[in-house]
Amino acid sequence: MLIVQKYGGTSVGSLERIQAVAGRVAAAVKAGNKVAVVVSAMSGETDKLIKLAQNICQRPDEREMDLLLSSGERVSAALTALALQERGINAMSFTGRQTGIITDTAHTRAKIEKISGERVKEALRKGKVAVIAGFQGVTGDMEDVTTLGRGGSDLTAVALAAALKAGLCEIYTDVEGVYTADPNIVPEAKKLDKVSYDEMLELASLGAKVLQTRSVEFAKKYNVPLVVLSSFTNAPGTYIVKEDPSMEKVLVSGVTYDKNQAKLTVLGAPDKPGIAARLFSDIANAGLVVDMIVQNVSSDNRETDISFTVPRTDSAKAREITEKIAKDLGARGVSANEGISKVSVVGVGMRTHSGVASKMFQVLAEHGINIMMISTSEIKVSCVIDAKYTELAVRALHQAFGLNGKSPVKKSTKKKPSPKK
Amino acid sequence: MLIVQKYGGTSVGSLERIQAVAGRVAAAVKAGNKVAVVVSAMSGETDKLIKLAQNICQRPDEREMDLLLSSGERVSAALTALALQERGINAMSFTGRQTGIITDTAHTRAKIEKISGERVKEALRKGKVAVIAGFQGVTGDMEDVTTLGRGGSDLTAVALAAALKAGLCEIYTDVEGVYTADPNIVPEAKKLDKVSYDEMLELASLGAKVLQTRSVEFAKKYNVPLVVLSSFTNAPGTYIVKEDPSMEKVLVSGVTYDKNQAKLTVLGAPDKPGIAARLFSDIANAGLVVDMIVQNVSSDNRETDISFTVPRTDSAKAREITEKIAKDLGARGVSANEGISKVSVVGVGMRTHSGVASKMFQVLAEHGINIMMISTSEIKVSCVIDAKYTELAVRALHQAFGLNGKSPVKKSTKKKPSPKK
Repeated sequence: MLIVQKYGGTSVGSLERIQAVAGRVAAAVKAGNKVAVVVSAMSGETDKLIKLAQNICQRPDEREMDLLLSSGERVSAALTALALQERGINAMSFTGRQTGIITDTAHTRAKIEKISGERVKEALRKGKVAVIAGFQGVTGDMEDVTTLGRGGSDLTAVALAAALKAGLCEIYTDVEGVYTADPNIVPEAKKLDKVSYDEMLELASLGAKVLQTRSVEFAKKYNVPLVVLSSFTNAPGTYIVKEDPSMEKVLVSGVTYDKNQAKLTVLGAPDKPGIAARLFSDIANAGLVVDMIVQNVSSDNRETDISFTVPRTDSAKAREITEKIAKDLGARGVSANEGISKVSVVGVGMRTHSGVASKMFQVLAEHGINIMMISTSEIKVSCVIDAKYTELAVRALHQAFGLNGKSPVKKSTKKKPSPKK
Repeated sequence: MLIVQKYGGTSVGSLERIQAVAGRVAAAVKAGNKVAVVVSAMSGETDKLIKLAQNICQRPDEREMDLLLSSGERVSAALTALALQERGINAMSFTGRQTGIITDTAHTRAKIEKISGERVKEALRKGKVAVIAGFQGVTGDMEDVTTLGRGGSDLTAVALAAALKAGLCEIYTDVEGVYTADPNIVPEAKKLDKVSYDEMLELASLGAKVLQTRSVEFAKKYNVPLVVLSSFTNAPGTYIVKEDPSMEKVLVSGVTYDKNQAKLTVLGAPDKPGIAARLFSDIANAGLVVDMIVQNVSSDNRETDISFTVPRTDSAKAREITEKIAKDLGARGVSANEGISKVSVVGVGMRTHSGVASKMFQVLAEHGINIMMISTSEIKVSCVIDAKYTELAVRALHQAFGLNGKSPVKKSTKKKPSPKK
């Protein structure tokens, strides 16, 4: 089988870890598989480079940032290829450009437009292990380096798995899979044996740091079989697969939180059509991703408050844009709150069961936690709350939805998806 | 004027140093110059990466090494561009590939075949400062990263200066110029105001670590005006120019040494034609550069000893090749000596004056230093000696040739070459 394995920063965080990765790859090769390996930068490297740049200027040019940040994955790809060679495995490294990962020109958050993978395919055909520097691509004119945003190596792996028509994409990380809640906060949290793409999408976008959202979207779209597992143990991990009937029996499969959010509010904007459109198109044009949006109409129906959340790292940029628009529109002002978090319950069972939202609100109320914003989808309910209540809220909800002390996926614990067909 | 400035590892060794570089570039721009900046990796980075690779395998694959090592210059290029932007200078970074530095495929020691410099020219035309990652290129098919060998950033700068027809190539380093001897060994050593390309070539190739040999050859070939100067002070530096009549009056302009050498000897090879040819063609094919060669014929004219020197880093590889050939040829064996150094005196005055070699042998003899190998050229005499006598020999020669306590270049100390026309 053709397998794409992706190793995150902690999995290649030291020479010892890189050698362990080489051992794991070698085992997969010896079992008769063709293997393409996608690596992140060694843990800490990307943050070190970001800090260097930020010490030079507050808002560094994004084209330069891409050249800067892409170097970390090149280093770990070369070192991993060397470690494989030292084990007698014929291995060869490839940068984003060499892999043919063509992106748009949105530096630091580029979107993949095409993956040719020609050189990788050729290497695999010749019996080599291809080691690919994750997180990076090249613009369509083949001129400039781009990066895919935080967690972009996951996307590299999934997109490459789709391009290569791989039988499985293994995402190695420092946790053993996807849990019903963050085990640091809820010690009773259980590992899920499998989740659907949609559930994982909600879990990832809501702050379960295991898998980057876009990579799950991509996996869903191209039906790439994914498994998230630890490079530190031999535990089986969590499979991320198409929804199946057994999953519907589970009401809630996990409770997640995201502290990396900021809330911005335009106060007292005139309540006219087109205001939200103007605001959010300007924000989107600046490349910022808005998560939740809530609009309240004031009592006299002439003014409106619009609140929305963005990743905290984008909050200064978003505030700048918002203040400009607020002024143009004649709004009273803009308030920003970085001390918030978003807590969510997720489960495909919500599709067929009601009452999850009201139960969530009730649990939060019982613990004296005020809800600032609410957003719902088919399979999740999210509430923005004061950040200091995050842990309390997650623990209370985990217990209230019966996730403590028993495995939440009823059937699949017995019938594991057969790995590595 | 169009100036190419090259900053070495210590000159970009910290954020403070990078900001100082940005200040220096800004001053050149404000003086009305167009500036292309070539940067090395931050000091220590390349060694750190080499150590990582060597901890994985003893003789790492060279294609992987190039991907690994080229990352250091990409980091410093991006950071330097950011530091310039922060000063309000319109700057843009370029990798070796983006600069159009096309090389052969000899990884870790690639030769430049062509520099298009199209994107750099365009940036300069638009009034931008181009910041180029030194030391690296790309293979002719535009596929793989190559590096130019140690000190390769000097070559990047000189070759780019030639391609851009720059008026001056400034090589910034951590010393104020080229000295009559290593000031760490000879405190009385004087800075030279100017030297000829040929003298610099001998000084560089013989171990004066200021400028990489190939870059001086390149500068000579394309008549690129060079100046070596410090990025830590405002001292005028040493100009490297075409030979002029004033230089002929100086007998010896410098004493140099090179401890980074190893001596290999094929013992008792049959004294037949073709043996040296066979040996050195195999060594050349392995990409190794041999420096000195001495062949002795034994008393009965039936056996011969061939000694030669290679850079110490290549000695294991050279020994391996040599032992194979020695066996094939029926020689008695191979001996290797890494405890040697080469001491040389250099000066264009030797072209017209005799007696330098004999005086050198006499000075060494007076200090009880045995000479193992001798090699001479038009403007230098070199002796291989036991490494432990290096400092003694350099000091004795420096004094014996009258370099102590007075400036060795008679005329040019009064008549400095006019800088930055």
